[in-house]
Amino acid sequence: MEGSGPVISVAAALDHLLGLVAPLPTETVTLRAAAGRVMSEPLAALHDQPPFDASAMDGYAVVKDAEPDDTFTIIGEAAAGHPFVGVLDYSDAVRIFTGAPIPPGATRVIIQEDVRRDGDRITVTGAPGDGPNIRPGGGDFAKGKVHQPRTPLGSRDSALLAAMGHGLVPVARKPVVALLMTGDELRPPGQVLAEGQITASNGYGLAAMCEAAGAEVRILPIASDTAASLSQAFRLAAGADLLITIGGASVGDHDLIADVAGDAGLDLSFHKVAMRPGKPLLAGRMGDMALVGLPGNPVSAMVCGVIFILPMLRRMQGLPNFSEILSYPLADAIAANGPRQHYMRAQVRDGRITVLDRQDSSLLSVLRDATHLVVRPPGDPARVAGEGVSALRLPA
Amino acid sequence: MEGSGPVISVAAALDHLLGLVAPLPTETVTLRAAAGRVMSEPLAALHDQPPFDASAMDGYAVVKDAEPDDTFTIIGEAAAGHPFVGVLDYSDAVRIFTGAPIPPGATRVIIQEDVRRDGDRITVTGAPGDGPNIRPGGGDFAKGKVHQPRTPLGSRDSALLAAMGHGLVPVARKPVVALLMTGDELRPPGQVLAEGQITASNGYGLAAMCEAAGAEVRILPIASDTAASLSQAFRLAAGADLLITIGGASVGDHDLIADVAGDAGLDLSFHKVAMRPGKPLLAGRMGDMALVGLPGNPVSAMVCGVIFILPMLRRMQGLPNFSEILSYPLADAIAANGPRQHYMRAQVRDGRITVLDRQDSSLLSVLRDATHLVVRPPGDPARVAGEGVSALRLPA
Repeated sequence: MEGSGPVISVAAALDHLLGLVAPLPTETVTLRAAAGRVMSEPLAALHDQPPFDASAMDGYAVVKDAEPDDTFTIIGEAAAGHPFVGVLDYSDAVRIFTGAPIPPGATRVIIQEDVRRDGDRITVTGAPGDGPNIRPGGGDFAKGKVHQPRTPLGSRDSALLAAMGHGLVPVARKPVVALLMTGDELRPPGQVLAEGQITASNGYGLAAMCEAAGAEVRILPIASDTAASLSQAFRLAAGADLLITIGGASVGDHDLIADVAGDAGLDLSFHKVAMRPGKPLLAGRMGDMALVGLPGNPVSAMVCGVIFILPMLRRMQGLPNFSEILSYPLADAIAANGPRQHYMRAQVRDGRITVLDRQDSSLLSVLRDATHLVVRPPGDPARVAGEGVSALRLPA
Repeated sequence: MEGSGPVISVAAALDHLLGLVAPLPTETVTLRAAAGRVMSEPLAALHDQPPFDASAMDGYAVVKDAEPDDTFTIIGEAAAGHPFVGVLDYSDAVRIFTGAPIPPGATRVIIQEDVRRDGDRITVTGAPGDGPNIRPGGGDFAKGKVHQPRTPLGSRDSALLAAMGHGLVPVARKPVVALLMTGDELRPPGQVLAEGQITASNGYGLAAMCEAAGAEVRILPIASDTAASLSQAFRLAAGADLLITIGGASVGDHDLIADVAGDAGLDLSFHKVAMRPGKPLLAGRMGDMALVGLPGNPVSAMVCGVIFILPMLRRMQGLPNFSEILSYPLADAIAANGPRQHYMRAQVRDGRITVLDRQDSSLLSVLRDATHLVVRPPGDPARVAGEGVSALRLPA
């Protein structure tokens, strides 16, 4: 456990981490509660949409083409939800409103602006045009059409699933994440600091990040740097799908997590990843729970959250692994990269990307000001202004 | 109320709508509950971050520069949360771990890889380099530094506010939105449809859209097309900051909302907006509540949600009016626009934008497939492939 493990690439680490989790079972929730969740099974439309030929306008339904000066007798009315029941002759018209079913046999709707009405008779005044002003049944989608987006359900999915007739939606159960900040120096925000103490922060950032990605998050009480405290915290994590520890994953004498996790049955997977920030990383399974130990530096923890934890949460919710990496021209030159994959805090403005000056992994204010992470592979050479570099957008 | 009002521009309509709402009062919530909310007052850091000079590495703190073969006597230890208390002489070293306070007077940390340890003595083996391996107190931010982002709080804000020492955050109260779908033809999703009935859908889409934008949403029972039903629904909306009605804002005989709203004390503002989709629109104030009446076509309602409702929710939460409109080259030519501002459903792929074939405002499936709305001003001429057009990204 003293840092003797092999150094592996980010890609190998991510592969390994994704292997620690599996898609979660389905639960059925109301359409409203399904917003932001991930559908775990397809749903088929229960009816055509529209379910019937419907009027696209307010006007008069007739069974023949109409020309100026044609006259019709109004024999009834069709409104949304109130179909006309009857049969139209060539000289008949049915007063009809937008969304109403087209009466059987009617072939067009003359819009009301194109007629003059006198009692129960109308006379066509304008040239009614070629369009029938009818929305055909099934024109939006047919009964049986299947919907299962490979993204969390958005507002347009909610509208579409409703139109398909579904009030209940099968979704992946929310991943339950337990977050454990460790360190004798940590105090929760809001508490006065004694000498040598700092405010625990990265767990709050990761909690918000995981929640926004669909997880249910429990922040455990801060653990101190003793085996007893860590063992107790691991027990408090019971029932979570994923335990994320923050801090204590380095190689110092005071780094107990690996040892305690080993005692608790952790099947340890790897220890060091060739990346900056965030080199030390623990991972494994402990019973039914995956465990990932992130470094304690605030920026390292948050960047590891983006690079490793978000893909794990996607997999648990049945989503494909995806992160959009785009190329942006550099606003300024940057020096050569070292042997580790470097995720550099950067800002995109007016289509160009600026790598921020201070890249120390303790600087939360710099991470906050960043919009993107420039992804620099190991050994990436120096780059001049205007050259394209790959970057991923930081989540809010 | 029979459609006789003036036709106004989208910009004029939006100005008017924004005038109907005002920033909501502040409430104080826990840091975790503040995620996604909008800060209504700035917060100042309660301490420097880090609060003290801290070791950036595991190693040995000394009070002088070190060269190969220098030896030091270890006189104590400093770990995170456990400062060393004492004074170092030139030949002394303090065993120190990452995050621990630098002992008074120490000027550098020799990393442990660069020394050989024998009992309580160390000998420098490598060339320790120039860096002090110290994170200076206040290097991230100074006590008193103010934070109040003009966006909903994201995960990095949560981490930063925690590091600043704040467990409680002042945020704008959530806008309470009541959504009222109207129409005799509407049935909630999940119910079997009789002839002429359709499933209510746009209210579910708007509910998800408003919730994702920070609102608390109540969907009222569907109202039928009678003055009594609408009056009752208006009473059920009591306490909301914003009542959105959907349907019944057109000029048909069955459109009662304007009349009933007038009876209920609505100060009606305008009726027709020169836009597609979504032309008919009601707006006004009714007591303490703003009212916006959206058209019933599903796509019209959702597009009006993006163009009008989201800016209103931003204003209520104290955010500046903002929607990012970017230019994309057209994949294919498009015809000239008519006299109304047209929000055309479109897809951006590989940096080019394709206006989708079917633009009828009843087609939810087309809206779902869209990623952007091309914004075409009134009278916009025909455009050829490769020309740039303005588009805004649809919210999820």
